[in-house]
Amino acid sequence: MGEPRLETLLLVLDLIGTFVFALSGAAAGVKRRLDLFGVFVLSFVAGNFGGITRDVLIGSIPPGAISDWRYLAVSLLAGAITFYRASAIDKLSSPVLVFDAAGLGLFAVSGAQKALAFGLDPVMAALLGMLTGIGGGMVRDILLSEIPAVLRADIYALAALSGAAVVVVGQLLGVPATAATAAGALLCFGLRLMAIRRGWRLPVAGRQAQRKASAKDQGDGR
Amino acid sequence: MGEPRLETLLLVLDLIGTFVFALSGAAAGVKRRLDLFGVFVLSFVAGNFGGITRDVLIGSIPPGAISDWRYLAVSLLAGAITFYRASAIDKLSSPVLVFDAAGLGLFAVSGAQKALAFGLDPVMAALLGMLTGIGGGMVRDILLSEIPAVLRADIYALAALSGAAVVVVGQLLGVPATAATAAGALLCFGLRLMAIRRGWRLPVAGRQAQRKASAKDQGDGR
Amino acid sequence: MGEPRLETLLLVLDLIGTFVFALSGAAAGVKRRLDLFGVFVLSFVAGNFGGITRDVLIGSIPPGAISDWRYLAVSLLAGAITFYRASAIDKLSSPVLVFDAAGLGLFAVSGAQKALAFGLDPVMAALLGMLTGIGGGMVRDILLSEIPAVLRADIYALAALSGAAVVVVGQLLGVPATAATAAGALLCFGLRLMAIRRGWRLPVAGRQAQRKASAKDQGDGR
Repeated sequence: MGEPRLETLLLVLDLIGTFVFALSGAAAGVKRRLDLFGVFVLSFVAGNFGGITRDVLIGSIPPGAISDWRYLAVSLLAGAITFYRASAIDKLSSPVLVFDAAGLGLFAVSGAQKALAFGLDPVMAALLGMLTGIGGGMVRDILLSEIPAVLRADIYALAALSGAAVVVVGQLLGVPATAATAAGALLCFGLRLMAIRRGWRLPVAGRQAQRKASAKDQGDGR
Repeated sequence: MGEPRLETLLLVLDLIGTFVFALSGAAAGVKRRLDLFGVFVLSFVAGNFGGITRDVLIGSIPPGAISDWRYLAVSLLAGAITFYRASAIDKLSSPVLVFDAAGLGLFAVSGAQKALAFGLDPVMAALLGMLTGIGGGMVRDILLSEIPAVLRADIYALAALSGAAVVVVGQLLGVPATAATAAGALLCFGLRLMAIRRGWRLPVAGRQAQRKASAKDQGDGR
Repeated sequence: MGEPRLETLLLVLDLIGTFVFALSGAAAGVKRRLDLFGVFVLSFVAGNFGGITRDVLIGSIPPGAISDWRYLAVSLLAGAITFYRASAIDKLSSPVLVFDAAGLGLFAVSGAQKALAFGLDPVMAALLGMLTGIGGGMVRDILLSEIPAVLRADIYALAALSGAAVVVVGQLLGVPATAATAAGALLCFGLRLMAIRRGWRLPVAGRQAQRKASAKDQGDGR
């Protein structure tokens, strides 16, 4: 489980990721007019679900989000700021999307780092980084009864995977962990923001199939 | 993991909590006209998801709900009663809400007790009690494709947290576990019922922000 | 945990189950017009959620789906096939349902086998087999914001439980694991397919209760 430096780096990344995902959860909650405690619950879940899932899957029990009060504190702080300064948050253009992109990048790299530290092989560490990144946003959307952004959005899971892959490749090449982590987080954040701005999209299944499916879809009444 | 008495207390609380949450799940399932087995699945999930999550997070593996047949038995019993006596259950006013409130109180205190027994620190034990309490109802609502009551409802997560906090503070002050547990469960149940009856609400974010958000919401077509 | 043969059997069943559930997830994703990566995410989640849940609950950490690259490989393969051959998949009548039924059978028996291998008692091993079987399809439907098929569909969880029970009873009677496993998977698959074709249904709660509930339902505006 390595040197104290890596642990500190992981903790800091995790806490910042928790904070920004908690902001995204709180902003979504305020938008849906939840009360103060509902906003807190959504902050905590959005901010910590990805990390809790990662910790459970690699066997780091109890998960940091449950055993370390700082995760709770930053989640509640994010919830309170969003709730009482909702108009300020509202002025940022599409704040949920931007916080979500930042959280995605931070959790993707911290997830990959922690999975490597627990001895998972490189490919799986990158995958787990991706899962850590997309977990919080997925459950935030599920709780609000929406189809998760990760399934619809442009270059979402792919951005997370790219960021996580940079960390893993960096370790294989012997690049210092700090540098690889920063590069991975920035790559993921940048890819996702560019995809939102420029409307980058991955292909969808061939036209014919799509037209059929769409006809069926309407037949299903959805 | 302490004296046999505490373990017995935990087991009894857990089983009663499972029973009432399973009733709430089954009642929701009958209302949506699920078939017998769908009602059983919803009973089991609503009754045991909170406890399973708690056990996974504190490292009590396999979770009681999986290794002890009594959890399954009380869940199925609750499902069968609701299914075959649906009209009786229906006569109670808003039965889902009342069972849900009882389950909330029982799981909040049993979750906090078990987390303390596994050595979590006091603040986190209270939080975990809250999570145990809200877990079952959350997943019941998610399965029925609704926004979970916990996010919308008046004084829901706050009631669970209050009940769990009573247990934790009780232990710090050296109050006998049985007394603190009973007080915590009653406080949570009472708070929640009063909130339902009297329409107690926590504040929602400032009016201006709300109006904007609501305008946006409609713009989003939701 | 036992002889190498059983382990190989478990792995093969798990991988085929992952493949067919991943196909069902990918087909559902293509139908909803997700992009390539969204389809991959849905493939992976549908194919592996049941097994990951089982492994977490019995304490087999990290779960196979995270530590063994073959689970990822078959999931992505299924996603790619569905995506690029969407029209071929589309020709099969209701492909999601058929793949789903096959995955249900395979996971029900592999889940029961693995739970027995980890020392769970027979009743609980059958239950865990059922949960393993229904997990992937449940989360696939939740991600697409639908009420899971398991709650609505004819003889779904019951089919999974029957298949898992055959495995457990087979072990109690000393039947060779391979034979019991094959019989269980076929029973589950057959029951589910027959239920779909012939519209077999389990009872729903008594008419009177149903009519009342339905009246209320409309009153709720849902």
